[in-house]
Amino acid sequence: MSTGSSTSTQGGSHIRLTSHPGQGAGGAPVIHWGAADPKERGPLIGTTTNRSQRNVIGTHSGSYGVYRALAVAAGNLTKGHRADLTNTAPTERIGPYPQWADPGKIVSIDPWGASVAEVFADELAQGMDIRPTIAVTQAHIHLPEVRQALAFQRLSVDGKFLLEDGSAAVTKIAVEPVWWLPGVAKRFGVSEAVLRKTLFEETGGMYPELVTRGDLEVFLPPIGGQTLYVFGQVQDLADPGVTLTARVHDECNGSDVFGSDICTCRPYLTHAIEECIKGAQAGGVGLIAYSRKEGRALGEVTKFLVYNARKRQVGGDSADKYFLRTECVAGVQDMRFQELMPDVLHWLGVKKIHRLVSMSNDKFDAITGSGIEVGERIKIPDELVPADARVEIEAKIAAGYFTDGSVPDATQLAATKGRDLVE
Amino acid sequence: MSTGSSTSTQGGSHIRLTSHPGQGAGGAPVIHWGAADPKERGPLIGTTTNRSQRNVIGTHSGSYGVYRALAVAAGNLTKGHRADLTNTAPTERIGPYPQWADPGKIVSIDPWGASVAEVFADELAQGMDIRPTIAVTQAHIHLPEVRQALAFQRLSVDGKFLLEDGSAAVTKIAVEPVWWLPGVAKRFGVSEAVLRKTLFEETGGMYPELVTRGDLEVFLPPIGGQTLYVFGQVQDLADPGVTLTARVHDECNGSDVFGSDICTCRPYLTHAIEECIKGAQAGGVGLIAYSRKEGRALGEVTKFLVYNARKRQVGGDSADKYFLRTECVAGVQDMRFQELMPDVLHWLGVKKIHRLVSMSNDKFDAITGSGIEVGERIKIPDELVPADARVEIEAKIAAGYFTDGSVPDATQLAATKGRDLVE
Repeated sequence: MSTGSSTSTQGGSHIRLTSHPGQGAGGAPVIHWGAADPKERGPLIGTTTNRSQRNVIGTHSGSYGVYRALAVAAGNLTKGHRADLTNTAPTERIGPYPQWADPGKIVSIDPWGASVAEVFADELAQGMDIRPTIAVTQAHIHLPEVRQALAFQRLSVDGKFLLEDGSAAVTKIAVEPVWWLPGVAKRFGVSEAVLRKTLFEETGGMYPELVTRGDLEVFLPPIGGQTLYVFGQVQDLADPGVTLTARVHDECNGSDVFGSDICTCRPYLTHAIEECIKGAQAGGVGLIAYSRKEGRALGEVTKFLVYNARKRQVGGDSADKYFLRTECVAGVQDMRFQELMPDVLHWLGVKKIHRLVSMSNDKFDAITGSGIEVGERIKIPDELVPADARVEIEAKIAAGYFTDGSVPDATQLAATKGRDLVE
Repeated sequence: MSTGSSTSTQGGSHIRLTSHPGQGAGGAPVIHWGAADPKERGPLIGTTTNRSQRNVIGTHSGSYGVYRALAVAAGNLTKGHRADLTNTAPTERIGPYPQWADPGKIVSIDPWGASVAEVFADELAQGMDIRPTIAVTQAHIHLPEVRQALAFQRLSVDGKFLLEDGSAAVTKIAVEPVWWLPGVAKRFGVSEAVLRKTLFEETGGMYPELVTRGDLEVFLPPIGGQTLYVFGQVQDLADPGVTLTARVHDECNGSDVFGSDICTCRPYLTHAIEECIKGAQAGGVGLIAYSRKEGRALGEVTKFLVYNARKRQVGGDSADKYFLRTECVAGVQDMRFQELMPDVLHWLGVKKIHRLVSMSNDKFDAITGSGIEVGERIKIPDELVPADARVEIEAKIAAGYFTDGSVPDATQLAATKGRDLVE
């Protein structure tokens, strides 16, 4: 296989193609995923400028790597720019925790991703192009729903977690995906070979190294990552004696930003933030883990096609047909793969979630299945379910979502209807 | 070059690698980008199951193609699933407009992407795997800021655009990126060969076909797309006689969803929505074009690293150093490339934006440079600029952002300070 040919059919200049086994392997640090000592684990190097250093497939910044390439092509970004990491270090120290040294617990993020400038200082000084895949900072966040909770006296200002101006003080953490392919394969119960082959073929041939470079075990996929918002002390997340209120939320731009009334996403998210603030004020800690998985990771085009199919079907948009319509268009009901979601909880050292603000059985099963205890499950208050979202919530409850009420039967599901399209 | 070798180093089964020039070219429809007749333009086929039909590089759903691959690997999605497009057609007819037939006006989306089921019905019946890249639906959106505007009587219910329950009726449109590489190269003033080579190299070797298949001119990049929200009649967007209020907004999850006070993103967005509703009520039409370009398309990890560097620098977070810190970490001040942004406006037939709710000179220049007239520019009201965002807005005004006030000088910039980190 010669994907690394150095000739080109485009332009006249030399093109460095996909790397080969053996090529430059001498200079690239070896990765021992799950090693407790970061030096033994080794740095991840996804540089695009020094092939001999590369020890991963793909490159940094998730899908924004494509924009970085565009910036180089357009002449805005100097090829080979190295980030000046001065003053960028995390505002909070997180870990290391024992979970970091368990290659079964964390397979889709790099536990050392926030601290590369510290733990790989020597390698950076030697000129290796090592980049943070996690960044930790602080923020004040203002949500109109929190101000409303203040006005209705459901929340009160304490000056530390919730400030006089209605803003909440948080630590926030951005996390880039880093997939250790043997571990990801195991998580899904398939062979690594099948995973690699399918990732390659079903993306239309992205990264031939997935199939040609079995020696490269780490893949930086061009997908969105996660953002974590912590209310209270970050270190308390690892202490099962401190009450943890948490929501794992999957992106829904149409509701999270624009407030579409067809689903419960933003109302449930802002309810969870309110619960997190209350929890921190009561001596606990709160966590929102926000994943970029728009439309159940089907993307928004598919999502909107499904909305139309739901609303136009014979009999209208009813809860009993909710999942069917997604499956007709997308082939699956959901592609979010909660199997990888708990990784970030293990990175934070979480052992117990006392109050899980989610009704999703997929999320619950993934969290508990990964060895994290879950106490109470907090459902969205009925009065927060928007007009057109009743179809979704009833369908999900019938399919196994947590409820403390009754599970709707077939007749009730057929009778729960959404708004028609007006064309 | 033999990237299409059929042998494998992984597993025992046959792996279909990247296609070659000549391979299967007989069966794949030819694309004539910019042809007025969709039949002459030809369908775009990014199928992962029938190589002989493929006439693009990459595959559908942007970065969610990786999740689709995961779904096949995990056995959740049947390989080769074909979408059932029954009842998914757009709720509004858009175009065709003369701009669709101008290959200089639209290079990064497929103007026929919403109507494939109609215009390529014959090809679909013949078994070609043609997928929509645009979906058009309707929604009611509820924003707390709109309810507040109602409470303060800045807005009033009309029963059509703004409803009794405080929700706004919109048409919303999801758009997937589709890059015609010759046109994208021209837009950035580089040769197509350089663009292809750089996209390949600087993504760490994504899609060798970028350099091996000069005959494939269309690339479906694994990046986020756009969502359009229209207030009023979609068809009015193409009529320069109808007053158009518009904002082109780039994603900022930290503000748009969580209300971080370090920037003006959500306040400016919700102000624009208020202006769009007012505009529709006054007989005009409103448009929000929301692009998935988190953190100036640098991604959120880089963004948070920059926040830390800004707040820890000697002298604190001051407006005169605002751009410098981003450049130190990322190598550029911005990677959003407004050059491609106007495409979606041309797709909607827009010839004039009467009221542009944006102060960005990059956006203004890109829109007017593409031949769209801009009337008034609407700045964010001072009272909506959050506490910690003064640094950003002053730095941007000094750098050329639109203002109807005075441009700060060096002394004023140095004196405009943000909050310190509390560590």
